[in-house]
Amino acid sequence: MQNFIFDNKTRIIFGKDYEQVVGQESVVFGKKLLLHYGGGSIKNSGLYDTVVNSLQEHGIEIYELGGVKPNPRVSLVREGVSLCKEHNIDFILAVGGGSVIDSAKAIAAGATYDGDVWDFFTGKSEVSTSLPIGVVLTIPAAGSESSAGTVITNEDGLYKRATGHLSLRPQFAILNPVLSYTLPAYQTACGITDMMAHILERYFTTEKNVELTDRLCEATLRTIISNAHTVLNEPTNYNARAEIMWSGTIAHNDLLNTGRIGDWASHDIEHEISGIYDIAHGAGLAIIFPAWMKYVYKHDINRFAQFANRVWDVEIDLNDLEKTALAGIKKMEQFFSSIGMPITLTEVEIGDEHFAEMAKKATERGTLGNFIKLQESDVYQIYQLAR
Amino acid sequence: MQNFIFDNKTRIIFGKDYEQVVGQESVVFGKKLLLHYGGGSIKNSGLYDTVVNSLQEHGIEIYELGGVKPNPRVSLVREGVSLCKEHNIDFILAVGGGSVIDSAKAIAAGATYDGDVWDFFTGKSEVSTSLPIGVVLTIPAAGSESSAGTVITNEDGLYKRATGHLSLRPQFAILNPVLSYTLPAYQTACGITDMMAHILERYFTTEKNVELTDRLCEATLRTIISNAHTVLNEPTNYNARAEIMWSGTIAHNDLLNTGRIGDWASHDIEHEISGIYDIAHGAGLAIIFPAWMKYVYKHDINRFAQFANRVWDVEIDLNDLEKTALAGIKKMEQFFSSIGMPITLTEVEIGDEHFAEMAKKATERGTLGNFIKLQESDVYQIYQLAR
Repeated sequence: MQNFIFDNKTRIIFGKDYEQVVGQESVVFGKKLLLHYGGGSIKNSGLYDTVVNSLQEHGIEIYELGGVKPNPRVSLVREGVSLCKEHNIDFILAVGGGSVIDSAKAIAAGATYDGDVWDFFTGKSEVSTSLPIGVVLTIPAAGSESSAGTVITNEDGLYKRATGHLSLRPQFAILNPVLSYTLPAYQTACGITDMMAHILERYFTTEKNVELTDRLCEATLRTIISNAHTVLNEPTNYNARAEIMWSGTIAHNDLLNTGRIGDWASHDIEHEISGIYDIAHGAGLAIIFPAWMKYVYKHDINRFAQFANRVWDVEIDLNDLEKTALAGIKKMEQFFSSIGMPITLTEVEIGDEHFAEMAKKATERGTLGNFIKLQESDVYQIYQLAR
Repeated sequence: MQNFIFDNKTRIIFGKDYEQVVGQESVVFGKKLLLHYGGGSIKNSGLYDTVVNSLQEHGIEIYELGGVKPNPRVSLVREGVSLCKEHNIDFILAVGGGSVIDSAKAIAAGATYDGDVWDFFTGKSEVSTSLPIGVVLTIPAAGSESSAGTVITNEDGLYKRATGHLSLRPQFAILNPVLSYTLPAYQTACGITDMMAHILERYFTTEKNVELTDRLCEATLRTIISNAHTVLNEPTNYNARAEIMWSGTIAHNDLLNTGRIGDWASHDIEHEISGIYDIAHGAGLAIIFPAWMKYVYKHDINRFAQFANRVWDVEIDLNDLEKTALAGIKKMEQFFSSIGMPITLTEVEIGDEHFAEMAKKATERGTLGNFIKLQESDVYQIYQLAR
């Protein structure tokens, strides 16, 4: 087990009706608040009114910035940064899913920085402080509600890049599973895939002695798998929605990373796809992860066999561990298909015309991943395996 | 799943040599520090010197209070409170195991309170603030390094009582598995039992829909069980010590409690024993937990069968779930015996002479537990089952 620091201060406020306490939780951080959100869905659902009422009851002055889109753009982030600087905003409240929260984090970092916020995503500068952030979560998927990271797309060149810092962990996250009832099946399935991918990125490590972390990963994966069809078939099943929502946070709050280094190549490989094609991040991951697995599993067949056995109930064939490992990957693909996810690029009508360009862009800052380090040519072959 | 708030701010600093950063982590909280510890073992091991040097390097003024004993006493806590008030202490550093940390927490609460600190343990008053606390852990067991609770014994009547508050969660906890190498086998086994008991108290709940939390509990229990014999046979096996140490924290940091109410009757029932007889808390739990289980399992045979199956690999007999449930309890008893724990009061030469008195004291503030609510007569019968 490797040395680690686990430092997660996000206060999780989980359950029915808790969006009503958002004012009380926010006012601790100041009276001037930037309310950040996406489109009209929170207005249609009544969530917007609930949040605004609660904030106003606590005497909070609200500045608004809506319009966050999936794969959130740096142009809107820059707009948010200007707003924060102009009005001396104290606190940013993100109401929405991962895109809104990531956008809010980038604004929070940019608001305390003199240069251009994109510097944090190119490596030109590093986040060291940020405005405090709070979250009312509507889409369980990204785990951004308790993570220290953010992913932003720069329209100029369609670069999708990540950065992170402890100060970007939200101060609180309000998680009411009821708010996810109206999420369409496809988005629900994308979220499920995304949270599973967050665990898989951490699970496939070269560190051998991480039994507790392995088992916690497996426990969370099994819970997601066990509840996936229920939330798709019964979108208003509270308990299943709750299991999925809490799993999505646990998947990405860094607990499942303790004692080892995760991989993260698949996310980087996928980012090039959703950077260009604007397909849902979860759908991209359902395509890329199996391809990545097929490309790398021989480097640690035991770990892939353990995954097959403990997560997918594949019986271990001691005389043919490769068969066991491959059966696990197959079961995962079948699962993704069963929840309506694509598992090939062909299914989403993406051809090979940008493979070379995407492989080049993905690796232009160095190799990808830690389980094995992928060069440009490896990434190209993984795109081919994903066809 | 029930609504919950999960708010755990303890910064976990886990791994080799991290005790050397204690000065840097402590100085954030002020320059006047109370160093709280037990007997001479930290002096013999050199840990005391390492800690003091690191604190002094950061210009911290150290006040000392050693002498904490197992089942920490309120008399020493009162001494610590006086020291803190007299010298305007900013921060309390506990170097040791659960007893030292619990004692430090009680001092931290008492130092900001005008009345007698025991008021917090009788229910006369409630903790609302406390001095900040840091921990260098030497004994993985109690989980106090990241919990919000403390248990103190009042010599006057031998009352052992608990209290808790979010402010009592340590600000940081330094966990170096190497510091537990010298722990004797018996104490190691007591620690293992204690952390397992912390999970079991949370696992046996009346809440039906807590799949993720159940699976995280099972994952942690399996990890402890899987590493227990290794740490006993190879006390300097880093990876096994690390799994046990990290499991001990996870067992009691409240993650495994999310979405439900735990039981905690067994702890209360045991407290009466170790309050009077001064036997190790872990050993008392190895005796009481199986007795409690045998007394209550019929109230939810499915849950006990799930426990038997998922934690102890007992095959589920759908035609005889009671047999499955009882086989799980049996396996747990066998496990406790195999690591050198007593599983009956007779083994530790405790007779029935105080059963009536202990059952009365245990229930004098009301019924015990939540899985089922135990009256005085139930507790008496559990002591009988534990003979």
